[in-house]
Amino acid sequence: MLTPPLTYPLSYVATHLQRSVMRDLIALANQPEIISFAGGLPAADHLPVAEIQTCVDAVLTRDGARALQYGPAYAPLREWIVGHMQGRGVACTFENVFITNGAQQALALLGRLLLDPGAPAVVEALTFTGIVQVMQAHGAALRPAAFDLNTGVDPDAFEAALTRPSSVGVAGGAARLGVVIPDFHNPVGASLPLAARRQLAQAAARTGVPLIEDDPYALLRYAGQALPPLKAFDEADRIFYVSSFSKTIAPAMRLGWIIAPAPMVARLSVLRESIDLESSQLLQRTVTEFLARGCLAAHLEALNTANRQRRDALLAALEREFGGWAEWTVPEGGLFLWLTLPPEVDTAARLAAAFERQVAYIPGVNFSAEGRYTNALRLNYSNNLPARLDEGVRRLAAVLRGP
Amino acid sequence: MLTPPLTYPLSYVATHLQRSVMRDLIALANQPEIISFAGGLPAADHLPVAEIQTCVDAVLTRDGARALQYGPAYAPLREWIVGHMQGRGVACTFENVFITNGAQQALALLGRLLLDPGAPAVVEALTFTGIVQVMQAHGAALRPAAFDLNTGVDPDAFEAALTRPSSVGVAGGAARLGVVIPDFHNPVGASLPLAARRQLAQAAARTGVPLIEDDPYALLRYAGQALPPLKAFDEADRIFYVSSFSKTIAPAMRLGWIIAPAPMVARLSVLRESIDLESSQLLQRTVTEFLARGCLAAHLEALNTANRQRRDALLAALEREFGGWAEWTVPEGGLFLWLTLPPEVDTAARLAAAFERQVAYIPGVNFSAEGRYTNALRLNYSNNLPARLDEGVRRLAAVLRGP
Repeated sequence: MLTPPLTYPLSYVATHLQRSVMRDLIALANQPEIISFAGGLPAADHLPVAEIQTCVDAVLTRDGARALQYGPAYAPLREWIVGHMQGRGVACTFENVFITNGAQQALALLGRLLLDPGAPAVVEALTFTGIVQVMQAHGAALRPAAFDLNTGVDPDAFEAALTRPSSVGVAGGAARLGVVIPDFHNPVGASLPLAARRQLAQAAARTGVPLIEDDPYALLRYAGQALPPLKAFDEADRIFYVSSFSKTIAPAMRLGWIIAPAPMVARLSVLRESIDLESSQLLQRTVTEFLARGCLAAHLEALNTANRQRRDALLAALEREFGGWAEWTVPEGGLFLWLTLPPEVDTAARLAAAFERQVAYIPGVNFSAEGRYTNALRLNYSNNLPARLDEGVRRLAAVLRGP
Repeated sequence: MLTPPLTYPLSYVATHLQRSVMRDLIALANQPEIISFAGGLPAADHLPVAEIQTCVDAVLTRDGARALQYGPAYAPLREWIVGHMQGRGVACTFENVFITNGAQQALALLGRLLLDPGAPAVVEALTFTGIVQVMQAHGAALRPAAFDLNTGVDPDAFEAALTRPSSVGVAGGAARLGVVIPDFHNPVGASLPLAARRQLAQAAARTGVPLIEDDPYALLRYAGQALPPLKAFDEADRIFYVSSFSKTIAPAMRLGWIIAPAPMVARLSVLRESIDLESSQLLQRTVTEFLARGCLAAHLEALNTANRQRRDALLAALEREFGGWAEWTVPEGGLFLWLTLPPEVDTAARLAAAFERQVAYIPGVNFSAEGRYTNALRLNYSNNLPARLDEGVRRLAAVLRGP
């Protein structure tokens, strides 16, 4: 095929949205000889293959063509989600549940619902790259709010950023949106304390600014006390709650959800229609069957046990190789922890050397809209066995502690 | 849950994108007592349930966790598409194939790639509502090009619209995009003649304006000669070819593709990442297994035979009830035909009466960006058995020929 110069104009978004270095990096690190701390994948050896195989077969036998046809969001799945959210302290009904293709589509749809070019949006000073990409795609002006590595975003700073007054060189006014990751924060692993959750929900009510609560990891807790989401304190109904089955069942189910006010669910369905019509009936029914058979609890127990063992192996190796020299977070669940090195170590600059030593990670700067955290890195521990994590940290130390 | 007044601002798109009346209508018509000509569903009694059940089981047994994990677009699926497109006369390679969640997501991604608010876009005077919604979502200024019910869009008119000069009250200049449905046009059923395909491809080369060729129905031919797509004549590489497995295998596979210049595939993958990351590994592998086992040819033969029988039943009933009074298209494939009544009959105004008589259709005006075709309607024949189509036309005649 010819590839002549592309003389036709591309959209503003197409020319401004940046390729995620992270995704390239993860692809590059996905070679068997490289020990990769880079990805965000659930444990491959714990994906529920046999259960899904049983469920998809049962669905096709029972539902036949209805499982392969177009159709509305699958009602029993929405009903399960209502029960699940109520169990987490969130008052909601069937009309508040919107099914998506994973949390990323939920974020994208909410960006499309709430943002216009130039709209101010408050994010955590360290945040998931997929959140930043959605903001960029809609031309939002990011306002990063101060973040504590152990307790998550500073609720006072976050609330102040929601309604920041204008000053010289700084756009002010009410933000159009704020985004918070409450549990097992990506990239840090922190969980927001109860008081901060309550305060942020109240901040949304006080300022009127809608918040997105991006919560894909809450069920991946293996230590400490489960906490209710911000949405449980959302008396003014200002919080759009987002979650996903990608990390709790399987990424290839491509299913997530939003809890939103019913009129907003109606608007989201209009936006969704023009984007990709709907989620797969087959995958919706398969996930519902998995949930209805009670497979989730047993699956999560095995998964979280494995994740805890892997975290512990990583912590032990970090203590041995980095003790007294670097600091790290100690998450109570999820897939990641955060390693902070002395200020002079530039983790992005060391990445090439890391690949040479056959180890990979994501430099901290990739999670900072301000280009900070240059001496930090994110480590995923869910998708490697303990011995490999141990050897990986040995390689990391050789790269990062070297000259 | 409280639903207080929603005081936060919504995006321009969210407040301007119109709910598809069509989708509401199709949902409303989806009651067993109503004979619905409204939908665009493939024949439910011909969805390949047993084959998909075998394929998904084989994939999970063979690939295990890889079928449930995150992953890049599945290479064997892209390779199958290359071979398929080459078989239709399109020169392309692996790097030209981009996998999507169905044709609607392909259209949405291309709108995001090519359109900005106010950008002129050329559409057929009658076109698929999903195309218009994408244009609306990106704020495009539509330029409808004259359409012939039997031979599709007028290529001269279409080319003129691509580079229309400005005049009083009419925005001119080069369009940013044109969109054509070549085979078994939705809503009309027309197929574009070979000369027009060649001319439109040359028009894209001459004007430099990229075209989208939306081609989900080509394999649904049950009569006449198969024609190559516009893309086969696209020597300047200006055409984005879009197709889907939704109508040829099953909608719930949620899989389609774009053939695009390799640099545009790279840009599409950046845009896609922020929207929903990727398509399901499980569904991609299941469809590939279906294709690799050679299930498609036998399936299409049975499906097209059924569609032809249904079209014939519909044509016979139309001749009996509407002969000499109305006119209709005679498609050689696809899911739809188009009925044109005397000018004074307002099909939108008769819709309520149609529902009372337990029959449903989509009024012609819904497919016209200019509010024309008020005396026409779209009839789907793929998802009802012949006897039901016959009774449906009897009811239609009672409603439409009445006072």
